[in-house]
Amino acid sequence: MSTVRVALLGCGNVGSEVARLLTDHADDLAARIGARLELIGVAVRRIGRDRSASGLDPLLFTTDAVGLVTRPDVDVVVELIGGIEPARSLVLSAMESGASVVSANKALLAEDSATLHAAAEKHGVDLYYEAAVGGAIPLLRPLRESLSGDRIRRVLGIVNGTTNFVLDKMDGSGAGFAEALEDAQALGFAEADPTADIEGFDAAAKAAILASIAFHSPVVAADVHREGIADVTSADIASARDMDAVVKFVAICELSEDEGSVGVRVHPAMLPRSHPLASVRGAYNAVFVESDAAGRLMFYGPGAGGAPTASAVLGDLVTVARNRLTGAVGPGASWYADRPVHPMGQTRTRYHISLDVDDRPGVLAAVAAVFAAHGVSIETVRQRMHGPDDAELVIVTHHSTDEALTATVAGLRELAAVRDVLSVMRVEGDQP
Amino acid sequence: MSTVRVALLGCGNVGSEVARLLTDHADDLAARIGARLELIGVAVRRIGRDRSASGLDPLLFTTDAVGLVTRPDVDVVVELIGGIEPARSLVLSAMESGASVVSANKALLAEDSATLHAAAEKHGVDLYYEAAVGGAIPLLRPLRESLSGDRIRRVLGIVNGTTNFVLDKMDGSGAGFAEALEDAQALGFAEADPTADIEGFDAAAKAAILASIAFHSPVVAADVHREGIADVTSADIASARDMDAVVKFVAICELSEDEGSVGVRVHPAMLPRSHPLASVRGAYNAVFVESDAAGRLMFYGPGAGGAPTASAVLGDLVTVARNRLTGAVGPGASWYADRPVHPMGQTRTRYHISLDVDDRPGVLAAVAAVFAAHGVSIETVRQRMHGPDDAELVIVTHHSTDEALTATVAGLRELAAVRDVLSVMRVEGDQP
Repeated sequence: MSTVRVALLGCGNVGSEVARLLTDHADDLAARIGARLELIGVAVRRIGRDRSASGLDPLLFTTDAVGLVTRPDVDVVVELIGGIEPARSLVLSAMESGASVVSANKALLAEDSATLHAAAEKHGVDLYYEAAVGGAIPLLRPLRESLSGDRIRRVLGIVNGTTNFVLDKMDGSGAGFAEALEDAQALGFAEADPTADIEGFDAAAKAAILASIAFHSPVVAADVHREGIADVTSADIASARDMDAVVKFVAICELSEDEGSVGVRVHPAMLPRSHPLASVRGAYNAVFVESDAAGRLMFYGPGAGGAPTASAVLGDLVTVARNRLTGAVGPGASWYADRPVHPMGQTRTRYHISLDVDDRPGVLAAVAAVFAAHGVSIETVRQRMHGPDDAELVIVTHHSTDEALTATVAGLRELAAVRDVLSVMRVEGDQP
Repeated sequence: MSTVRVALLGCGNVGSEVARLLTDHADDLAARIGARLELIGVAVRRIGRDRSASGLDPLLFTTDAVGLVTRPDVDVVVELIGGIEPARSLVLSAMESGASVVSANKALLAEDSATLHAAAEKHGVDLYYEAAVGGAIPLLRPLRESLSGDRIRRVLGIVNGTTNFVLDKMDGSGAGFAEALEDAQALGFAEADPTADIEGFDAAAKAAILASIAFHSPVVAADVHREGIADVTSADIASARDMDAVVKFVAICELSEDEGSVGVRVHPAMLPRSHPLASVRGAYNAVFVESDAAGRLMFYGPGAGGAPTASAVLGDLVTVARNRLTGAVGPGASWYADRPVHPMGQTRTRYHISLDVDDRPGVLAAVAAVFAAHGVSIETVRQRMHGPDDAELVIVTHHSTDEALTATVAGLRELAAVRDVLSVMRVEGDQP
């Protein structure tokens, strides 16, 4: 039986699980591939650390990543170091030397997949990165292959476990943002510096990757409209509950109505509790896909963690290894549609707006006039008394451009009768 | 740009949607494949019918299916006629002539995929059949490719829309089975002769296909333990509701604890309402997969219908066409593990049993003794009074073999104090 030689870049949480599966499932993998996978080296930053738990031969470890990826006998390089550099240079060197690449690096793929895909094509090697989005959930392969005969309209997903855990906690316990984040950190669901998750950088990178594949157009992280969850309040959560909705941090990739452009955004939004994404709990991820022929599909599973991410890496590794044996190359970048990303202002969405207003005749008329002035149509208004002359108006709009909705909120803030704008949040999860 | 030539067998609900998508998405498909898909013929049973709605050139239609699939210029045959013969002979003839095959034929694949895969391998062509299970839901490709580096433990799915619609109706409206089935027929969710759905033949075929792929072992429909939903009563549904569960018709494929055999079964079962499959409504399908590294995944979407099924067919068609262009062949049957199917009696599961009993001292002791005699451990017992000396005992067991559970129920029926066995149903949806 022949051998496919694998080099591993990084041996942290995911890398050590990949190494473990390569050993534990060696016979299964060989039977499925038709060749044995041989781990020929693991590049790490420091050689001194105790790595006996990995069960790997200490001689496999090296700090010379460049030397490892350019070894002439490497068939596949698995890149798990993350970040832009040195990951990009190493991956490019590997491909130049003729190795295929499996990566879990969302930041790199969302910033520069054009360069990587071009290199893969030039050198006739594979580039797979299922683990970069949604952890163990098969997402990129279904989008890229299973739905390749269909027309995807929208991808709506919960793609960051940390923010989902925090919002879930706020919804379940009534905790405020800061308290829920502390809980997440204490339980290991949020990092000590949670910026990448909380501010939406992680989700934005994943959204860019999903949009590129779904709409056959190059989208990078910088194209993604991004709002984090740090400003979500207990009042927002309570207001969502009042309308039988839940606040989720969503990534949305959608085709414009004329199909000429795409919108890509990550932000907190209210989803009806009846929506399949509303019941995604804790650190789980789920992605909802709407396409012309298939209709509404959902993919659900653990979005992070060493073993789940390793499962996705191994799936890619098996495919790439099979391709090496037969001389085939999998589908590369498919950006023929080359649609531009439209600005957030042009996105059509709905708003939930909660206002603290004077309770006197004419206030609703004044508020409604602001909506009308910006061409925004109101779907529902509910009024609740908070005191003798103090009322809360909760307004949900019909679909309108984000631009018009933003201008409406600015107009409302200027009304004398509006004491405070208590909550403004987009409402998603139904057909536009 | 080169051309990949496609022949269609069957032009019903799915076939006409496939033809429509080939036309409507022609440019997209060409860009994604790198070649144009050309429909060169459609085999139908009768030529006389008005097919103008399909928008196809009338000259494409032929009743000579054999002649069509053996035309030397056919690259891919799409088989949508269903049933065993003549579908099998046509598919085999097509492959012998060098054409790859895309099929949506669950009955054929569940009966004789060994012959079909062997022929595909012999002639160096592709055989893909994503549309055979779960309609539009990408399932077989994720199981076969995305999870190919993992070890799947269990597949638990709702794979038949008709039965899900009927049970959903019974749960929502309190209707009996016959009434709910009539509703489903009136709304087009059940056929005039609903036997294949109601008796579980359709689900059993899909379970066989899923098990074959998940466990790398040949499983045919005849291996599947099958119980339909015709005996599910309103009392069962009410009893499930009392324990915050719902009755679903499930397909279960699972690896034995020693990994030496597989169990494959379709039957009604109670699932906790908190289980992701419990909220699958109407004619939707969903499949829950448990694997060692990935953990718990779920795939959800429309399980039938012309357009959704056509989406799955087109996805396969794009893959097969790409393979034709590069000379590659996708992964074939992977049955290296060759695990036998164990008998239903050896399956480990839980039972929910509801008994009408005399309310007098010693009855519970007598009932409990029957469980103990068969080595079945009881998880919960609830008693409800129905009259002065008439009680209902609702018992949920721990995991045991199906054999022991069946024997326990038989023993209970013989107890003098047991007036009637009101409901017996398996309880699924948690870890054994």
